[in-house]
Amino acid sequence: MVGSECLFCKIVDGRIPASIVHQDEQVVAFRDIAPQAPVHMLVVPKLHIPSLEALEQEHQALVGHMVLVAQKLAREAGLAENGYRLVLNCGRDGGQTVFHLHLHLLGGTSLAGRMA
Amino acid sequence: MVGSECLFCKIVDGRIPASIVHQDEQVVAFRDIAPQAPVHMLVVPKLHIPSLEALEQEHQALVGHMVLVAQKLAREAGLAENGYRLVLNCGRDGGQTVFHLHLHLLGGTSLAGRMA
Repeated sequence: MVGSECLFCKIVDGRIPASIVHQDEQVVAFRDIAPQAPVHMLVVPKLHIPSLEALEQEHQALVGHMVLVAQKLAREAGLAENGYRLVLNCGRDGGQTVFHLHLHLLGGTSLAGRMA
Repeated sequence: MVGSECLFCKIVDGRIPASIVHQDEQVVAFRDIAPQAPVHMLVVPKLHIPSLEALEQEHQALVGHMVLVAQKLAREAGLAENGYRLVLNCGRDGGQTVFHLHLHLLGGTSLAGRMA
């Protein structure tokens, strides 16, 4: 699923459109097309990493960067004061549907008590 | 809430007991006392960072390390094949209850479709 077939690689490459909210050398972020909260964005590494399970030590800084980008997007979306949730789903039990690592940013409503 | 009053600082310092599953120079991980899934652990930085909102650029590698430690714990708990979820809650809307940054590792059951 690398490159030509992966949905998120196609968004990273600009081969299919998305509502891009951030882009830098390492990641692209865009609005989820099936939002589960008033604010629902995804932060995706440009590098094709299929899942959390495929993460290596060398990706440590990249993952930290994904979280810091999500924090910036949360601030820009006005979520800093009330709060928000970041989620990384892995595999079937985690509910991962696209096998290209992505960090969910969810906010704009109370998510308390519905983590699992 | 730094040091003497913060619940997670007390666990980090060993002043109150916890079911510790991992410890290194940067983080401590332990089982959640009110689990929301069959496997529910928390990865906590030893440094008192109140929330995601307090995260600075200098913490990038630390956050990446927290995720890699959670991946290791998931593997040790036998979750690698079926999957798992990692969650960072921030503030009231995120359902954050302890104001010391912590990464939730949830697994051992299907979490699909219940992210928010």
